[in-house]
Amino acid sequence: MLPKKSLDWGRSKSCIRELAAYGSARKAEIGADKVFDFSIGNPSVPAPAQVNETLIELLRTQESTELHGYTPAAGLPSLREAIAKDLRTRLDAPVSADGIYVCCGAAAGLAACCRGLLCPGETALTFAPFFPEYRVFVEGAGGVFGVVPPAEGLQPDLDALERRLTADVKRVLVNTPNNPSGVVLSAESLQRMSGILRAAERRFGHPIYLISDEPYRELVYDGPLPPNVLGFYDDAIVCYSWSKSLSLPGERIGYLAVSDRMAEKEEVFAALAGAARASGYVNPPSLMQRCVERCLGLTSDLSVYRANRDLLYSGLTEAGFECVYPDGAFYLFMKSPEPDAKAFSERAKQFELLLVPSDDFGMEGYVRLAYCVSPEMIRRALPAFRALAESYGL
Amino acid sequence: MLPKKSLDWGRSKSCIRELAAYGSARKAEIGADKVFDFSIGNPSVPAPAQVNETLIELLRTQESTELHGYTPAAGLPSLREAIAKDLRTRLDAPVSADGIYVCCGAAAGLAACCRGLLCPGETALTFAPFFPEYRVFVEGAGGVFGVVPPAEGLQPDLDALERRLTADVKRVLVNTPNNPSGVVLSAESLQRMSGILRAAERRFGHPIYLISDEPYRELVYDGPLPPNVLGFYDDAIVCYSWSKSLSLPGERIGYLAVSDRMAEKEEVFAALAGAARASGYVNPPSLMQRCVERCLGLTSDLSVYRANRDLLYSGLTEAGFECVYPDGAFYLFMKSPEPDAKAFSERAKQFELLLVPSDDFGMEGYVRLAYCVSPEMIRRALPAFRALAESYGL
Repeated sequence: MLPKKSLDWGRSKSCIRELAAYGSARKAEIGADKVFDFSIGNPSVPAPAQVNETLIELLRTQESTELHGYTPAAGLPSLREAIAKDLRTRLDAPVSADGIYVCCGAAAGLAACCRGLLCPGETALTFAPFFPEYRVFVEGAGGVFGVVPPAEGLQPDLDALERRLTADVKRVLVNTPNNPSGVVLSAESLQRMSGILRAAERRFGHPIYLISDEPYRELVYDGPLPPNVLGFYDDAIVCYSWSKSLSLPGERIGYLAVSDRMAEKEEVFAALAGAARASGYVNPPSLMQRCVERCLGLTSDLSVYRANRDLLYSGLTEAGFECVYPDGAFYLFMKSPEPDAKAFSERAKQFELLLVPSDDFGMEGYVRLAYCVSPEMIRRALPAFRALAESYGL
Repeated sequence: MLPKKSLDWGRSKSCIRELAAYGSARKAEIGADKVFDFSIGNPSVPAPAQVNETLIELLRTQESTELHGYTPAAGLPSLREAIAKDLRTRLDAPVSADGIYVCCGAAAGLAACCRGLLCPGETALTFAPFFPEYRVFVEGAGGVFGVVPPAEGLQPDLDALERRLTADVKRVLVNTPNNPSGVVLSAESLQRMSGILRAAERRFGHPIYLISDEPYRELVYDGPLPPNVLGFYDDAIVCYSWSKSLSLPGERIGYLAVSDRMAEKEEVFAALAGAARASGYVNPPSLMQRCVERCLGLTSDLSVYRANRDLLYSGLTEAGFECVYPDGAFYLFMKSPEPDAKAFSERAKQFELLLVPSDDFGMEGYVRLAYCVSPEMIRRALPAFRALAESYGL
């Protein structure tokens, strides 16, 4: 009687949340300092002091009916202007205020991209490993979720992409830096991917929109900001969130940026707005819109994540594990010493190590470690990792 | 190439917003005090002082990573408990914490009800006059939007409901106090409606969920809180928002309450959660969740709206207009002296009066006046209303 898909989505437990719930129970049982919980991607560093200071100043000085009032559905005009200017300045990205749709976090933006830009039965492709909600958003829009396996080093397999680009493929989703692998799309990958997509657009006579999910954009550790898709491909939309850069995941504030160079920009923007409207998104939270406008360009102190990455990567490789070197985000993808990642995750529990098996991310044989944790916990966990490695004879 | 419905929803301008935009331009032209703008339902009274004080205290005392962190998708357990307790205490409503889904305002809740509880092709009925977004939410879910005309005094026409209840009708939407009419569903209407729906459930062998949209619940002027649907009908869901009661429309915080007496409560809750998930709702804004938990039971100073209602209703009826007496909300529904409400709205503009024609609300021949404005503006507007009446020979 009820829509089956909604029921399934409401009932299915994510592997990550189940492991986190096990962790909470286990911590209560044996003590929080005895459990090494790498399950959840919740920022561990506070928002910059300016965020709370700005919020308090807004609350003290702005008129209540305006501060907490409705804003336009796409966000405050001044915020949209400021975002476009920031993207032009920092990323040299071809975007204007009329292509910015401020939304309730990256998830809202991605869901609007799927619902607004996919007709039922059309395919959206992504690359493994991928964030599990992508499947829900694509199938929620009535689309077909297609997965392209990765190449060496977990960069996208572009030969496989080329083979998979049939007439039914209308959208491609990428995620850089990547959750769960931490891999950043290289300029070379973006360049070649763009050429392949342009050729397919010409071959099939329809646009193929490339949607780039970038909530971890500022979380890169070995250089400046990663290359941005908007510089490579005209039919591109960037989806951003301040969840990680400002440590505000619960506040649900982010944006979509539609390229100025997109031929159908006006139609695409209208379809995104219409999809958000039909999903009941009236406007992004008003107080937080005013706050991020005043905090543009700031980030939390992200140096902790870099130190954690270095500590964890070296500790794990020294213990004998094979890991994908993470350029960004706060995740590390580690190869399971046995083919079954779920069995490996279960064995790790015996050492009080909580590692998410990779199956939900569309790949077998890996585990994801979220290292947005205290450095002390990583240090305390390393002997447990060594013992786990030894149990496999590594 | 793009989904037609999303494009249409993104492009269609609401009559209300067009009139408000005209108003802004006109105010810039002749002065804000010369234009009598009754177009928009934006609360005109500030949030209670405790709201901003609570926000500031939370920002000063709570740890950032927790305060701004992810919460469970359905909201903080403590908030869900507090809401259920408040509803049991104040409304004697049969609800528990596990039936409360905190969401990004009433719009998010209604959209989740439509997407989660309607299979494509099934009908959701509502009563005219209705809030225009209902159509978008129902058709967005692939449902059929059915409208039952009102009876005398704009209470629902229950004979018409009985005739319209065919096997395809799975959901009924009501809105009390009503936007645009201000009419409150009486206990008698609710009692009879419940009996009719129960009989139809037995006749067709499937549940008919009654979804009651109640963002104006506390805005009633002639007595205690209005009778609540949860006391009359078991297969009921209430949709609430703090937008109007706490003057926080831009902050997007509200909830769904599923009756404890609903036989399929667990499935319905899962389907609502799944629909919200597929729409990209991760959690309601976290700071605001903590704030409303501490401000439960408070309201803004709503006495201004009552005074406005009295002033406007008596002024308009004395001028010769026929008005529906509004028991609640901050809207007044006035009969157009000519059959074409759009023409009447155009003529009113000549008197600098901005009145929304009723056509988008599913009824012809009325205009809606939002009286969430300053009492001074109403006083200044009354001579213009009298002149408008005279121009029709009233």
